[in-house]
Amino acid sequence: MTSLDQHLIVTLVCDDQPGIVHAVSGAVVEARGNITESQQFSSHDTGRFFMRLQVETLLGSEEFSGILRPVVERYNMEHSVSTVGQKTRTLVLGSTAAHCVTDLLSRQRDGHLAIDVPMILANHPDLGSAAEFYGVDFEWKPVTTEAEKADFEARVWEVVQSHDIELVVLARYMQVVSPELCERLAGRMINIHHSFLPGFKGANPYRQAHQRGVKLIGATAHFVTEDLDEGPIIEQNVVRVDHSQSPAELVRVGQDEESRTLAQAVGWFAEHRILLDGIRTIIFR
Amino acid sequence: MTSLDQHLIVTLVCDDQPGIVHAVSGAVVEARGNITESQQFSSHDTGRFFMRLQVETLLGSEEFSGILRPVVERYNMEHSVSTVGQKTRTLVLGSTAAHCVTDLLSRQRDGHLAIDVPMILANHPDLGSAAEFYGVDFEWKPVTTEAEKADFEARVWEVVQSHDIELVVLARYMQVVSPELCERLAGRMINIHHSFLPGFKGANPYRQAHQRGVKLIGATAHFVTEDLDEGPIIEQNVVRVDHSQSPAELVRVGQDEESRTLAQAVGWFAEHRILLDGIRTIIFR
Amino acid sequence: MTSLDQHLIVTLVCDDQPGIVHAVSGAVVEARGNITESQQFSSHDTGRFFMRLQVETLLGSEEFSGILRPVVERYNMEHSVSTVGQKTRTLVLGSTAAHCVTDLLSRQRDGHLAIDVPMILANHPDLGSAAEFYGVDFEWKPVTTEAEKADFEARVWEVVQSHDIELVVLARYMQVVSPELCERLAGRMINIHHSFLPGFKGANPYRQAHQRGVKLIGATAHFVTEDLDEGPIIEQNVVRVDHSQSPAELVRVGQDEESRTLAQAVGWFAEHRILLDGIRTIIFR
Amino acid sequence: MTSLDQHLIVTLVCDDQPGIVHAVSGAVVEARGNITESQQFSSHDTGRFFMRLQVETLLGSEEFSGILRPVVERYNMEHSVSTVGQKTRTLVLGSTAAHCVTDLLSRQRDGHLAIDVPMILANHPDLGSAAEFYGVDFEWKPVTTEAEKADFEARVWEVVQSHDIELVVLARYMQVVSPELCERLAGRMINIHHSFLPGFKGANPYRQAHQRGVKLIGATAHFVTEDLDEGPIIEQNVVRVDHSQSPAELVRVGQDEESRTLAQAVGWFAEHRILLDGIRTIIFR
Repeated sequence: MTSLDQHLIVTLVCDDQPGIVHAVSGAVVEARGNITESQQFSSHDTGRFFMRLQVETLLGSEEFSGILRPVVERYNMEHSVSTVGQKTRTLVLGSTAAHCVTDLLSRQRDGHLAIDVPMILANHPDLGSAAEFYGVDFEWKPVTTEAEKADFEARVWEVVQSHDIELVVLARYMQVVSPELCERLAGRMINIHHSFLPGFKGANPYRQAHQRGVKLIGATAHFVTEDLDEGPIIEQNVVRVDHSQSPAELVRVGQDEESRTLAQAVGWFAEHRILLDGIRTIIFR
Repeated sequence: MTSLDQHLIVTLVCDDQPGIVHAVSGAVVEARGNITESQQFSSHDTGRFFMRLQVETLLGSEEFSGILRPVVERYNMEHSVSTVGQKTRTLVLGSTAAHCVTDLLSRQRDGHLAIDVPMILANHPDLGSAAEFYGVDFEWKPVTTEAEKADFEARVWEVVQSHDIELVVLARYMQVVSPELCERLAGRMINIHHSFLPGFKGANPYRQAHQRGVKLIGATAHFVTEDLDEGPIIEQNVVRVDHSQSPAELVRVGQDEESRTLAQAVGWFAEHRILLDGIRTIIFR
Repeated sequence: MTSLDQHLIVTLVCDDQPGIVHAVSGAVVEARGNITESQQFSSHDTGRFFMRLQVETLLGSEEFSGILRPVVERYNMEHSVSTVGQKTRTLVLGSTAAHCVTDLLSRQRDGHLAIDVPMILANHPDLGSAAEFYGVDFEWKPVTTEAEKADFEARVWEVVQSHDIELVVLARYMQVVSPELCERLAGRMINIHHSFLPGFKGANPYRQAHQRGVKLIGATAHFVTEDLDEGPIIEQNVVRVDHSQSPAELVRVGQDEESRTLAQAVGWFAEHRILLDGIRTIIFR
Repeated sequence: MTSLDQHLIVTLVCDDQPGIVHAVSGAVVEARGNITESQQFSSHDTGRFFMRLQVETLLGSEEFSGILRPVVERYNMEHSVSTVGQKTRTLVLGSTAAHCVTDLLSRQRDGHLAIDVPMILANHPDLGSAAEFYGVDFEWKPVTTEAEKADFEARVWEVVQSHDIELVVLARYMQVVSPELCERLAGRMINIHHSFLPGFKGANPYRQAHQRGVKLIGATAHFVTEDLDEGPIIEQNVVRVDHSQSPAELVRVGQDEESRTLAQAVGWFAEHRILLDGIRTIIFR
């Protein structure tokens, strides 16, 4: 094919029933496209069908959506069509810890994450120099009272709208998000938190993990819901530790896991590889 | 659907071109089937298209094949249709080492590998008691001369034919297979061998690996071709070792990797998850 | 040295202070021994010093203990001296699930675990045939009432004493152990349980893990204390899973982790590699 | 103890014989020190004894060396005494690829690697901006002829001497080092190269690995000897890949492994955790 070709990413979710693949592939044929990647999953738990396609075609995403419309309507599908390589507009919320933020910005700069971060919002000034280094706008305002939190979240929502933000990343933002904002950003706000076996509640979990002598520490990236640290899980990683490591070393090891786990989740989101099946995620890796 | 349903596994390989998925899914619709699992891959290296489907249907594999025939002919496809859960008839060739053989038989007995092993052929008597324990027929004959090797391989071929063998597994058989037998069993004879970084030639590779202080040892499962230890790779695993481990310990660790890597490869074969793309494999995990 | 040599394993625990290594190595010199392996750790949390030595010597363990006695008394040490290769007398408690029990017995038979299991006690008859196959005595009695549990635990204690049992392994025994028995077997009773991120309470945790879409499932081996599933952690492993795996598949994957994690913990115990530092373990791998 | 305390790292290598640990710990007692970490290994291959200690003491490294001298002389030991936290003076040699160089400099800046890099020397100008960003001097000169190579290596040696360089790191330097420079920097020049199972010779190994369908790709860090890519191995890592990844993706994945494997090796060197036992390394992790 010619260099005019582009690749579209198509995601589709609907109730499972026979004939869906035939109908979708028919639309691809009609668009003179070629399916270059395809993944699907039928959930026994919810009876839903999930599909992600990459289609090589001369058409743009709007033209292709037009051709797909009858299928979408017939099966009452949630769907999306986007272009491979198109960057996901991403707003990063931070606090004082730099590791996740600089990891994301560094991967963005190196072209390893298909995101475009126009701005970082934080409740502390500490991340300003990192933002400057990576050439990203930075704003901060304190979040110590309910009124300040409302102001902060109002600013978040303003930026989401004014900058066409598709994804909000809590990169160690360390604040509970209000139910209203959770609702508004449902399915497009990702958080990272440390994970331990067994879990530890309360302050300084790494110290607790050290005292308890855990042999694995890890991190979980998940969508944010009202129930903090309990939204649909996107990715988890662990790393082995042993008795000789101090709490400070556990923190360092754990932060590495947090950074790479969050980056993985953000990358999958940007490539439209995450679909929601009730309270769990379907990941088309 | 009703309890009469069964699941078919369909694999398809042909030159890549638009419309294949639509044609195949059309056949599934015609068979009143439902696609419950689907994976595909287009090889940039060879221009070939690979597909594996699981289809829920009331039809048997022969009926479904009949419906699929026009598509197969139109696209000049290599294809297979089989039933989920149908056991792969497997002949195991062994020598003196028991670890891979007992691992396979134990997994077969526990129902964790969808294989049916009617017989073990070996060039030494050592594996007889293991075969007896697992209730598998056992034959052995020496392979020390060219004539004996020809006899042995003749017996292999005889068993393949008389027992409808679909897969031959070299479970530390330790003999070079003749080009003739390689040819006859192309794409359905799997070998396991140890793997090191860097590679070691000659006798006692574990001792060499110890002397060289490697930090990883591993195993590779691959299809057998004339070029021993060089056929299409199916699966590879490594495990970390260190300076404190003796050659004997490396052997033990390495054997564990050999067993689990071979079992993984055999399991994928039995589930029709391995397709050949020239000298490499496509694995639909 | 001559073939009369043997290797002793020495473990030592005392309050940390300067001079301990010098005093211990002085005893080794006096015994005309040679230290072939040595590991030590000073706990900042408890101020305790931990040491494990392997010593090549012509002396037996009792003679060596005699030479070591002044050092042990001077530093008020907990200590043990045993012979490399000496098998740990192990009682296995089981219920209905076979995977951990057969894994342990199989590794024992192959010489990969330095344990000697004279008997399996269970609260169900199901494991009888596995015990028979591996040539291990088997007894079972129901544990459905408090009285039956008291009887069962009385029998456990009887066997521990009559068979010089050093280690009791709960291989999916699935019963809460009474505080009395926990106390009597403190530091020498090991349990295995599944582990998830996040943790799940209540029945059928694998189903909960599936519903919640976890990406990792694992197992934890730990010493048994009154607080069930909360004793000092010995070893933890996880394995990656995804949305396509059914609860039944998670169970199978999880059982493999349980088996290998328990075997690892038992192996370390048998080699005197586990020392207790309050509520956590020091593992000298 | 008081805040005047410091920790020394002591490494010792000599022929194995009884009494070494007692003699060394006697010197520690004499120095009123306390052993806080100790690892040892007796090589069956070479009959050599290896030891690494961390000692808490009021003495400086020279004073402690004085007390240790009689022991060192008696056992004819190779030894080193240094201070925990003292940074290893490191010269980085690069070419055009940035990933390993920026990874090292970034870890240095974050305090995660105890190295001090005063300068980068390269045979291409490409790394200049990275060096500038991290505030490290940068020089480059072409290496296209034998005379230029001699000039380049002369400059390397000059910098080693003028800057008290303890470690030279080939961070994708991609040039064969002359036997003379290998000899001069024996045991303190580390290289990183990609590793595959099986190994691939010649240009573009990632393309070869793709064509061959390998399932694992990795990296090996090793000391440089005349025999390029064959010196004593320090660390190895692999990562899983599959048929769907293009050669370009394999390169990216492989570069990540190169960076982290090299950083691990450099970190161990800086902490004096690597000792040479003939053609292999003892790593006291």
